[in-house]
Amino acid sequence: MSYIGIVRVLGIDCGGEFTGYGVVEQTEASLVCITYGAVALSRAQPLAERLACLFGELRAIVARHQPDAVAIEDVFYAVNAKSALKLGQVRGVAMLVAALEGCPVAEYSPLSIKSAVVGYGRAEKQQVQQMVARLLALATLPAPFDAADALAIAICHLHTHATLERHGSSRS
Amino acid sequence: MSYIGIVRVLGIDCGGEFTGYGVVEQTEASLVCITYGAVALSRAQPLAERLACLFGELRAIVARHQPDAVAIEDVFYAVNAKSALKLGQVRGVAMLVAALEGCPVAEYSPLSIKSAVVGYGRAEKQQVQQMVARLLALATLPAPFDAADALAIAICHLHTHATLERHGSSRS
Repeated sequence: MSYIGIVRVLGIDCGGEFTGYGVVEQTEASLVCITYGAVALSRAQPLAERLACLFGELRAIVARHQPDAVAIEDVFYAVNAKSALKLGQVRGVAMLVAALEGCPVAEYSPLSIKSAVVGYGRAEKQQVQQMVARLLALATLPAPFDAADALAIAICHLHTHATLERHGSSRS
Repeated sequence: MSYIGIVRVLGIDCGGEFTGYGVVEQTEASLVCITYGAVALSRAQPLAERLACLFGELRAIVARHQPDAVAIEDVFYAVNAKSALKLGQVRGVAMLVAALEGCPVAEYSPLSIKSAVVGYGRAEKQQVQQMVARLLALATLPAPFDAADALAIAICHLHTHATLERHGSSRS
């Protein structure tokens, strides 16, 4: 997979209550934040309906912003089985949206994401938020944390592909 | 939720490799098997594409057989976090299909399903398969096990609602 053609990435931070999203574009000179936010999954609704809401929201975001790729946080194995099942349900819907829209999906571990954005794999949420704001030249800190994390995932994907591209170029 | 109007149920047995399905109809005198089978999720495909295949298959089944409700096996907490995440991804897609098609979703524990079908909560897969064949008057055992389990989930839902209905009727 080459960096060529991958300029706009939708990062999704899946969660049981809030699912953050962030679209970042790589221009020649800088990273530009296109949009970010979080979809709340109301506990008042049955789970299936919550998933349908999330599906609708994510499809609308993809249709509107036409990302070239979707990046998602990789599995965090330390969670318990109950949390993992909940997270999996949300993650399944997010990955489905990407596939239905023809976007390739990339997965990154929390360590990779924090390393790419903060330069330190065990960074705190606040540090990620601050670095995301700086890298994207945002006037305010992106909130909630879920949205900041989603932007971080998108940045991580763009960084990774920029690195692959540089390595590819140096060989040619 | 009343039993009235719930006559045809789609049972789904979610799994990482095979997802079984079975449609059962409650007529006045008996339970009738409308269809059953299993959707294989090829490991050769990326996960997102596998989920998109499953989504397409399940939507086609719902569109064709128009169930009044969807029944799914409830969470089995004893699995590890990795399996739970995988299962959750498939489960999220199955629940999404139900919600998008306007079908209410009911969840039953493995214990309830086996008790409803075999009369014993710790029944083996073979016993479930045999009892499903007997209850639905099938000439051959439903296979694979995923499909037999899906039929068992549908039967469990119909039994549960028949019981609720009887209790409701006795009060009126």
